[in-house]
Amino acid sequence: MVDDAALRRTVTQIFEKLGVSPDDAAEAGEVLTMTDLRGVETHGVSNMLRAYVRDYKAGKLDPRPGWRMVRESPGTAVIDAERRLGIIIGPKAMRLAVEKARRVGVGVVTVFNSGHFGAIGHFAMQAAEQNMVGVCFTGAGLSVVPTFASKPLLGTNPIALAAPARHEAPMLFDAATSAIAGNKIRLAMRVGSPLLPGWVTDKDGTPIMEEKPIFDRDDVYQAPLGGTREQGSHKGYGFALMAEVLSTVLSGALPTMLVPGSGSKNHFAAYNIEAFTDLEQFKDTMDTMLRTLRTAKPAAGQERVLYPGLSEAEEIQHRRAHGIPLHKEVIQWFAECTSEFGLAPLVTMR
Amino acid sequence: MVDDAALRRTVTQIFEKLGVSPDDAAEAGEVLTMTDLRGVETHGVSNMLRAYVRDYKAGKLDPRPGWRMVRESPGTAVIDAERRLGIIIGPKAMRLAVEKARRVGVGVVTVFNSGHFGAIGHFAMQAAEQNMVGVCFTGAGLSVVPTFASKPLLGTNPIALAAPARHEAPMLFDAATSAIAGNKIRLAMRVGSPLLPGWVTDKDGTPIMEEKPIFDRDDVYQAPLGGTREQGSHKGYGFALMAEVLSTVLSGALPTMLVPGSGSKNHFAAYNIEAFTDLEQFKDTMDTMLRTLRTAKPAAGQERVLYPGLSEAEEIQHRRAHGIPLHKEVIQWFAECTSEFGLAPLVTMR
Repeated sequence: MVDDAALRRTVTQIFEKLGVSPDDAAEAGEVLTMTDLRGVETHGVSNMLRAYVRDYKAGKLDPRPGWRMVRESPGTAVIDAERRLGIIIGPKAMRLAVEKARRVGVGVVTVFNSGHFGAIGHFAMQAAEQNMVGVCFTGAGLSVVPTFASKPLLGTNPIALAAPARHEAPMLFDAATSAIAGNKIRLAMRVGSPLLPGWVTDKDGTPIMEEKPIFDRDDVYQAPLGGTREQGSHKGYGFALMAEVLSTVLSGALPTMLVPGSGSKNHFAAYNIEAFTDLEQFKDTMDTMLRTLRTAKPAAGQERVLYPGLSEAEEIQHRRAHGIPLHKEVIQWFAECTSEFGLAPLVTMR
Repeated sequence: MVDDAALRRTVTQIFEKLGVSPDDAAEAGEVLTMTDLRGVETHGVSNMLRAYVRDYKAGKLDPRPGWRMVRESPGTAVIDAERRLGIIIGPKAMRLAVEKARRVGVGVVTVFNSGHFGAIGHFAMQAAEQNMVGVCFTGAGLSVVPTFASKPLLGTNPIALAAPARHEAPMLFDAATSAIAGNKIRLAMRVGSPLLPGWVTDKDGTPIMEEKPIFDRDDVYQAPLGGTREQGSHKGYGFALMAEVLSTVLSGALPTMLVPGSGSKNHFAAYNIEAFTDLEQFKDTMDTMLRTLRTAKPAAGQERVLYPGLSEAEEIQHRRAHGIPLHKEVIQWFAECTSEFGLAPLVTMR
């Protein structure tokens, strides 16, 4: 267990040692720590931090502050990240979208040529904290097979939306447009549990419809949300393409299917609620709607009805009070990393 | 078979007889005819026109032109449709969004308190024809059961995106966030074919996972895209809520779960491509991406890989040349309707 403040401090120090400016390092520490506080461990320190450290050391990521503005209008901007890390560029891009939305009602900023963006729900939440609706789309990777195709041409291309409420936890939706996240395949393999029908395809692109364990990640590709055409995989495929158009093509960049390894492309949108309606009325309606969902009678055998963002908000409260659980192996990695950089060790809770 | 020009003419005349202004009637005739040309029969004249005629006659729809602007900013507007028909308000709302996008880079117009919006892909395409990316979200209806819940609290809430290409057919994605469209359940019942696992839930909200025929539409509710939690229904549910927030709550309106029968709510967004990147480069990239998808090697047993909008574009070419097929029973309805209104009969091709 680690305290979130201790984790934020050590992560920030590691980024500084990698040559990142203090402000940018603090930004990165905040994104990663909040991601772990929300319980989105797939995108927190355990999985991602060591990849970032490796990529900075290998010169794949550029630690310099700033970015290159490619085009700008009152409501929009396009940023060339020039291989800077996405979790550092993301907060700035969403702040710019929020600023534009404050002036003209809606702001959209697209970013291309960047490193990994982490859990994009974080950036959507930034807008929600400014009394706006935040939306993000990502085009990145090459692991998902379009319906009827025989090889992966799209990434897991997540889509996120956050909206503020008054008393209820804010709505926070953040989902890959694939049937399941890539990291979950690795997790299932590690614990030897079978993948469910429609989660992946064989190397010919045919959806695997038996429940069976996978022993090699390279034996399968990912299926779009829906799994098969009959179950709606053409919709998951369409959502993935939607994310590609709004983040990649609308950045003037090329999709990963045309230039593998071309980095992440992202779309940050902020909708200024006050440009649309009364802010207090918006929050009241969100409250009533989310409470209606949360208190709906569950189906037989189900415990309760959740809405997107509810369990994340509960996890934040719990982890702020009791700490963030980190695997022994991750604690070990921190020990080596801080020692290598001559930093004080990560303070654990016991 | 009917010629599209003949269909457009008769549909327009019917709307005029219902008290709609000539301009608005022409707009409605265009939306419905294009929808049938694209092969989206669920939302064309066969299914929807008679419902519209019935609702105008019953006074549920208001034929007056115009609307009430509730709030406006350089990039945004909110419209109270005051019970006017969605397929008449939609083209105007998207035109307003396009106009705003021309000035500030992006335009968003939300509309509430309206009649049915037809196939929302049509409005997204309007933006694509103006060299913009068009996006629509709809919140309407009460037929989809949130993951783990026991009763429907959301509509099929479709999401659409259209983007122009150069030589390839434009991308046109238009999908309900439910596992299958409501009309397809009715169709399956009519022909006695079984519903597939995960398409619907029983009246307790539990997803039905056996393949079995349904005899009464009221015996089932609709499942979100994904079907079950394991197959990702929480994502379909999240997308449905996303559409609700962006169209309903961002209109200052109440979701249908709180006010049943409160009409459609819509979100129209236009992204001015030239505010983001070079228009010609955008079209080239779309072409290369869409061609890569279209010519990808199909999985074993599959004929070809499609992209969203490809079969619709092919259908338009085919139906423009050979006519739009209408069921005998629909032709019969047209005969009665035109005769009642004292209009010339719909000209059929043979």
